[in-house]
Amino acid sequence: MPPEKITSLQNPRLKELVKLRDRRARDEAGTFLIEGYREITRALEKGVALRELYFAPDWFLGENEPAVMARAEAAGAKLFELSKDAFAKAAYRDRPDGLLAVAPQWRRTLGELAASPSPLLLVVEAIEKPGNLGTILRSADAAGCDAVIVCDQVTDIFNPNVVRASTGVLFSVPCIVAENDGVLAWLRQRGIRIAATTPSATDLYTGADLRGPLAIVMGSEQYGLSDFWLKNADQALRIPMAGHADSLNVAMAATIALFEAVRQRTI
Amino acid sequence: MPPEKITSLQNPRLKELVKLRDRRARDEAGTFLIEGYREITRALEKGVALRELYFAPDWFLGENEPAVMARAEAAGAKLFELSKDAFAKAAYRDRPDGLLAVAPQWRRTLGELAASPSPLLLVVEAIEKPGNLGTILRSADAAGCDAVIVCDQVTDIFNPNVVRASTGVLFSVPCIVAENDGVLAWLRQRGIRIAATTPSATDLYTGADLRGPLAIVMGSEQYGLSDFWLKNADQALRIPMAGHADSLNVAMAATIALFEAVRQRTI
Repeated sequence: MPPEKITSLQNPRLKELVKLRDRRARDEAGTFLIEGYREITRALEKGVALRELYFAPDWFLGENEPAVMARAEAAGAKLFELSKDAFAKAAYRDRPDGLLAVAPQWRRTLGELAASPSPLLLVVEAIEKPGNLGTILRSADAAGCDAVIVCDQVTDIFNPNVVRASTGVLFSVPCIVAENDGVLAWLRQRGIRIAATTPSATDLYTGADLRGPLAIVMGSEQYGLSDFWLKNADQALRIPMAGHADSLNVAMAATIALFEAVRQRTI
Repeated sequence: MPPEKITSLQNPRLKELVKLRDRRARDEAGTFLIEGYREITRALEKGVALRELYFAPDWFLGENEPAVMARAEAAGAKLFELSKDAFAKAAYRDRPDGLLAVAPQWRRTLGELAASPSPLLLVVEAIEKPGNLGTILRSADAAGCDAVIVCDQVTDIFNPNVVRASTGVLFSVPCIVAENDGVLAWLRQRGIRIAATTPSATDLYTGADLRGPLAIVMGSEQYGLSDFWLKNADQALRIPMAGHADSLNVAMAATIALFEAVRQRTI
């Protein structure tokens, strides 16, 4: 049976897709949007069970889109063909590439996390900007982190801009949403050292031993780390900065700290 | 004399402001846009001679805007008051804060660069995304780089999104636009070692000596470094990556390499 075709801008499915840009609608539906060839391909590679795949050949940039569609359909996704205008309405990107999927959200808990014997974890608290959270996930992936733990979630990890900025890494790096208290207890139980990064620390991050079981904790863009983590951390570290005090944003700082840990762990 | 008021969306000055988003118009006018309280404040701090300052009290977010306006006027800028609608048209930000300036472009040359005896330089080739170039400038600022040299410029350093992503660091870090040949000759003359970063290198960046006079060279997002730099570099270095091959973008890779150089130079 050929896919249903949607051309009307008033189509109720289109309206549902647009609604999924809002967190409340996502949480009610238990789903989220994955837009773009690269992101959808990575979701499929990682076994994300796409429910629906909307495609618009008028927007395709290459020739591999039908293969992605076939793969999604084989994995159980329902396909819908959209007119150019209809897709433009559904897409949240300025320059869409004709592929948009709806997938179920998931919730991983700390209990499910199969951390390695000497894990490297990144804990981020109350990150505000989806772009930063996405970039942080990319860095964590590149650094081989066991997991990213998102505490006191402000930005929904299923925000379309997190998916996008993560370039689909959201589907590969274990990403756990939890509360500060639970995370602290979990880290303590496992003897995982807690290194808080804060500009007010006296110790440089490069002078600390970042080997062994370690959680690097980063605070929000605007407020930095909360007292909770500053008090409970085993050590407080700072990244030296020349120039403007805010030249490094949280994503860059996380990247620097993670790769110093990688350096120490591989020499 | 009170500032001229602009309320008509057809006002020719407004149209000129909108045109300055395009490189050709910027180059013809020899000017560029600086939008936002933070960026304009930094431009003033660094002695950028603002020519015009457009303000719209309806968009102000705080109470310090009049002080910035007074400072700009004292430094020779002509002030224009805009209605809310007129400012929304002139602004390129989605959420403007009621301040937009026009400043003259400048061109720094390698000859003008007063590098320290043992400089740390970042050379970037053909960067395509303004956001990446802006982030790179921030990292260079935080790392205390002597200068950022932009080779084979693809993205205009005066692009509004470079100004924005750099959070105004464009006004403090010496940023030089030049051609590959000239940059290579200049580095050679001064005995500055050239470290090319490329995923195809066998040596890790952490194993190299990044002390002394050094230029770290990064390639474009899509194509990486050109043969020119790969052939002429004194050493080729790679940043190890777990996970996806493209998890680190050029701005994050630059940040990691620069901070490893800072680490080595301060221990």
